[in-house]
Amino acid sequence: MSSFLHTKYQALEAYTPGEQPRDKQYIKLNTNESPYPPSQAVLTALGEEDIRDLRLYSDPEGKALKLALARLYGMGADQVFLSNGSDDILNFAFMAFGQDGAVFPDLTYSFYPVFADLHGVPYSTVPLHEDFTVDVPGLSGTGKLTVLANPNAPTGIALPLSEVEKIIASNPDHVVVIDEAYVDFGADSAAALVDRYPNLLVVMTYSKSRSMAGARLGFALGQPELIADLEKLKFSTNPYNVNRLTLKLGIAAVASDDYFRANAQRIMATRETTTNALRQMGFSIPDSQANFLFITHPQVDGAKLYQACKDKGVLIRHFSTPALAPYNRVTIGSEEEMAAFLSVVEEILAEEGV
Amino acid sequence: MSSFLHTKYQALEAYTPGEQPRDKQYIKLNTNESPYPPSQAVLTALGEEDIRDLRLYSDPEGKALKLALARLYGMGADQVFLSNGSDDILNFAFMAFGQDGAVFPDLTYSFYPVFADLHGVPYSTVPLHEDFTVDVPGLSGTGKLTVLANPNAPTGIALPLSEVEKIIASNPDHVVVIDEAYVDFGADSAAALVDRYPNLLVVMTYSKSRSMAGARLGFALGQPELIADLEKLKFSTNPYNVNRLTLKLGIAAVASDDYFRANAQRIMATRETTTNALRQMGFSIPDSQANFLFITHPQVDGAKLYQACKDKGVLIRHFSTPALAPYNRVTIGSEEEMAAFLSVVEEILAEEGV
Repeated sequence: MSSFLHTKYQALEAYTPGEQPRDKQYIKLNTNESPYPPSQAVLTALGEEDIRDLRLYSDPEGKALKLALARLYGMGADQVFLSNGSDDILNFAFMAFGQDGAVFPDLTYSFYPVFADLHGVPYSTVPLHEDFTVDVPGLSGTGKLTVLANPNAPTGIALPLSEVEKIIASNPDHVVVIDEAYVDFGADSAAALVDRYPNLLVVMTYSKSRSMAGARLGFALGQPELIADLEKLKFSTNPYNVNRLTLKLGIAAVASDDYFRANAQRIMATRETTTNALRQMGFSIPDSQANFLFITHPQVDGAKLYQACKDKGVLIRHFSTPALAPYNRVTIGSEEEMAAFLSVVEEILAEEGV
Repeated sequence: MSSFLHTKYQALEAYTPGEQPRDKQYIKLNTNESPYPPSQAVLTALGEEDIRDLRLYSDPEGKALKLALARLYGMGADQVFLSNGSDDILNFAFMAFGQDGAVFPDLTYSFYPVFADLHGVPYSTVPLHEDFTVDVPGLSGTGKLTVLANPNAPTGIALPLSEVEKIIASNPDHVVVIDEAYVDFGADSAAALVDRYPNLLVVMTYSKSRSMAGARLGFALGQPELIADLEKLKFSTNPYNVNRLTLKLGIAAVASDDYFRANAQRIMATRETTTNALRQMGFSIPDSQANFLFITHPQVDGAKLYQACKDKGVLIRHFSTPALAPYNRVTIGSEEEMAAFLSVVEEILAEEGV
């Protein structure tokens, strides 16, 4: 830290992304990426002309991609906001809508408190129930910006849409953000509610089901006034923040929605077999509707499992928070990757004498 | 605007990027893009494997690109900050270093006051001299974050490095940002001063001389503590904000630095012939060391010239600020584009009876 940094940021703790070690090739089950490549349409979308045209700025309004997404979700282009990944949108949402504070579950995406701290938004958390489900009454009528990841991370548990709607309807004077990064793996999207609730912002990403984490593309759906607020912040920070290639690839991806839905189905099937196999080995796992599992074993320390997996070439995600010490989050990879992971876990359990 | 937007942003005026009309093909001299494509190494850098790998996140630390830039500029990788275009870096700089307010010339990049307003940074401006040169004593010892575009926009005038150094040296307790978006077109970079001044942040971009505006890549050079402050803000908003393809293209571009330097020389030569031709027609133009000219004609209204050029298929940049009404900013395109522009201007002058 320099002596020049604004005092309000000096104690700020930044977010810690999943590790990306380069020392060897790992089976990478730690950042919830898709095991499948982008669609054929995406793989073939770029020609030399697109690289030549990189000399030109991208369209700061991303009109063509907005139109494509608007058609896909059955709304108007003025109800779509595009940005550089969904983190970027969540950041704008805390900035724009956090005047009366924010509230979110105590166990959820660990970036939310960082956004809140960054923008000086006071926040409170609502404990999950003992079975890790979200406390719907606790998140209702909060009178604050309310942020719900559905499915929730790192648990993978989804709320039914009727429960999500209760939270949205209960808080008409404040924005409710539904962070649907993982919605395509079995949960119901609140996109269907956008026209009924001016306070609803649905945030989605290309990073998971669409296999484009490295392209940096997120979008949000909401009523035009809410979208206009986000545009104002974007045009006051970095208007061109979605690059030309990503805009083009994003349109190709919309055109191959069936491919991504089929991949999601395949990941969901692998999730079920992996869950069953791990439960047979004694792991406790909530039913996941995301592309990851939140696992714990009564006889194996969480940090030890993480390290033993890493030593054997499989990266999973361990969180340093004390309350999460017994757990690990495991991304659902391909059938082969999960078979390899299960063998590694079996070995570790045997070594631990379980 | 929605009723939910934080009151502190309600009066905020966002930045207005240069227009991108789609109604017909224009000769585009309005956003300071390069007329030349990226280098051969950039054009051939991406293979199908890179698109397949988009399923994976980008390296949030961008280590390989940082190393390449560090070698190019003769410093350590911990003295390089990467972000999604240089606007993104300027935004972070106002956030991080504006606690005691900010100061910049009254005529400069019109995004600076937007960043200041966005982050609640009070700012003052120092008038340019009558010949549009920067008032060095006026920007010295300000006791505030001091931001200097060198060369300055929209004038194109550069300060000699010795004058830039006076500003940096005079303000040891506050950060001095030298925004070098246009430095490769004839000015001297303050990068050479980074090791001597802990308060110096040099901001650069791939968008101009490197022909990669559409890839979104900016970087900053400074001492490690200053860079660490920017990293903290980046990792608290959007850690993966430079996408995988851009990181790879960015490395290829560093390897073809000679190509970009040759392009810059060519643009500088075109700038000289264009300047001479326009002056012959009666235009007043400061000597530019950027890839654009700041032009005015005593007998032709600035807005009229802009509109007449647009009607004839050439886009130049007109600013709506009253003080700038007589002026236009004209990007230096290819030899052919500038010849076409000069013909159009000749026609317009004839139509105006000049």
